[in-house]
Amino acid sequence: VLYDRLVSNEILNMVREDATMVYVGKRAGFHTRTQDEIHELLSAFASAGATILRLKGGDPLVFGRGGEELDFLRDNNPNVQVEVVPGITAAAGVGSELGIPLTHRGIATSVRLLTGHLREGATSTTNMADAASDPVDFAVTAADVETTLVVYMGLGTLPRLSQKLIENGFPANMPAVAIERGTTTCERRVFSSIEHLPEAAAACELVSPTLLIVGLTVTLSPLWPYAATHSEDFSSRVYEPKWIEQRGSPRGADVDDWKIWLDVDMDESRCSSRHTFREIHVDTAF
Amino acid sequence: VLYDRLVSNEILNMVREDATMVYVGKRAGFHTRTQDEIHELLSAFASAGATILRLKGGDPLVFGRGGEELDFLRDNNPNVQVEVVPGITAAAGVGSELGIPLTHRGIATSVRLLTGHLREGATSTTNMADAASDPVDFAVTAADVETTLVVYMGLGTLPRLSQKLIENGFPANMPAVAIERGTTTCERRVFSSIEHLPEAAAACELVSPTLLIVGLTVTLSPLWPYAATHSEDFSSRVYEPKWIEQRGSPRGADVDDWKIWLDVDMDESRCSSRHTFREIHVDTAF
Repeated sequence: VLYDRLVSNEILNMVREDATMVYVGKRAGFHTRTQDEIHELLSAFASAGATILRLKGGDPLVFGRGGEELDFLRDNNPNVQVEVVPGITAAAGVGSELGIPLTHRGIATSVRLLTGHLREGATSTTNMADAASDPVDFAVTAADVETTLVVYMGLGTLPRLSQKLIENGFPANMPAVAIERGTTTCERRVFSSIEHLPEAAAACELVSPTLLIVGLTVTLSPLWPYAATHSEDFSSRVYEPKWIEQRGSPRGADVDDWKIWLDVDMDESRCSSRHTFREIHVDTAF
Repeated sequence: VLYDRLVSNEILNMVREDATMVYVGKRAGFHTRTQDEIHELLSAFASAGATILRLKGGDPLVFGRGGEELDFLRDNNPNVQVEVVPGITAAAGVGSELGIPLTHRGIATSVRLLTGHLREGATSTTNMADAASDPVDFAVTAADVETTLVVYMGLGTLPRLSQKLIENGFPANMPAVAIERGTTTCERRVFSSIEHLPEAAAACELVSPTLLIVGLTVTLSPLWPYAATHSEDFSSRVYEPKWIEQRGSPRGADVDDWKIWLDVDMDESRCSSRHTFREIHVDTAF
């Protein structure tokens, strides 16, 4: 079992006891394993005849680099049978948790998933692109107010994303939310406008992994702390305060709880258990 | 249990025997229940104190109208607790089944999910959109060759989508695939270029539900029946024949099977069981 950082203990505990556990997670700026090393590990285990579970958080084919691993195995271990089991990508998990529909009749006719940063060594292999191979630039050329934008790993480029969206005609007060450690008990959410979200994320000291959702659908969340703004007078709205931070997972909370989230800070001690690994899940040294 | 057309028997058979099963599925052009009727049913059961499972195929918040149902309940039954359980949306399910990464380093930096048709009575409630509230127009304004486009329910508007994408600078030979009844044993896939896909879909008599995937990532599928085309000489490629139809689910097939899919027509009788409902799943008359 080659597993990533964002796989929860609940999932890891379902792995049979005699499986060899290999941690191949990454942190931004600190890679335990490079992608090339992961490819080599997969290929080496496959060549040895092992049955491999490549366990990732989210969906392996949506910013999960599953395609690269498939591609490498096809080139190097062409007789290995690979089955991809899809997962709940962060956009869907966080959208469900917050009650933000990614599409919604009359409000968002499409949803676009993009990443805030290019991966290590990423370059375009196509020569047809007019724009530079910069996902933020793509977001901007694609910006329309009836599309929900979901940005994976977008914290670092958030200031530039915000500026460019507004320069390209996005209303400065377009609703937006940054979600740190979404769907965990340690979840933190900061609601604001796209104009003020970069300042808010910095003030709240959000860290990776943080997902961004930008669009009118954000106001449909029961957790949206301002008056509903998907009405026609949207463009004149001002949010005060400029941003609102909430803590803790709303999952399973009842309606009254959801109202209380707006005021309550959660006990940080409740957040610790999810982020420690059981002793069996050691990083086997290869 | 209020359940939709695209919920499989395998899932329905997990429902406890004493649950009241209400079929609220729709077919294109033939609605067993209107969305308003579904809202009223949800509200009526909720008011009666029932515990309701609203069971949908895919993800309820991605072209699943779950947001509308949440919105209605919030307005009409504000004290009802609602929990949204995310699902595998068709883009992820079909992408995994076909081995098409929706994003891929250097090939697709984002993925965009859109719908080929506006739902019943859909109109824009925002007055900020420059473009008309037409998802195909949005697709076109957003078209870039480094984004994977996934179109839900796009069969009807496929000719217009194809024409507009090409008019707006998409290469006519951009790889594309139409997948009918994706992830079922009855799956049919037609691979072609975006230019020829409308003709192919018509010639193969594809029917709803059919998903479209357009982009260079399509060529990464082991099922892609032409030479790989995500290389630099892509734009000069010609596919012969103009399209290739494949039948049957590749799930669980081994590598040799996947090669055989390219030549073999599947026995249609294998497709029947998935699409009949057990007697207990009757449409309770309300």
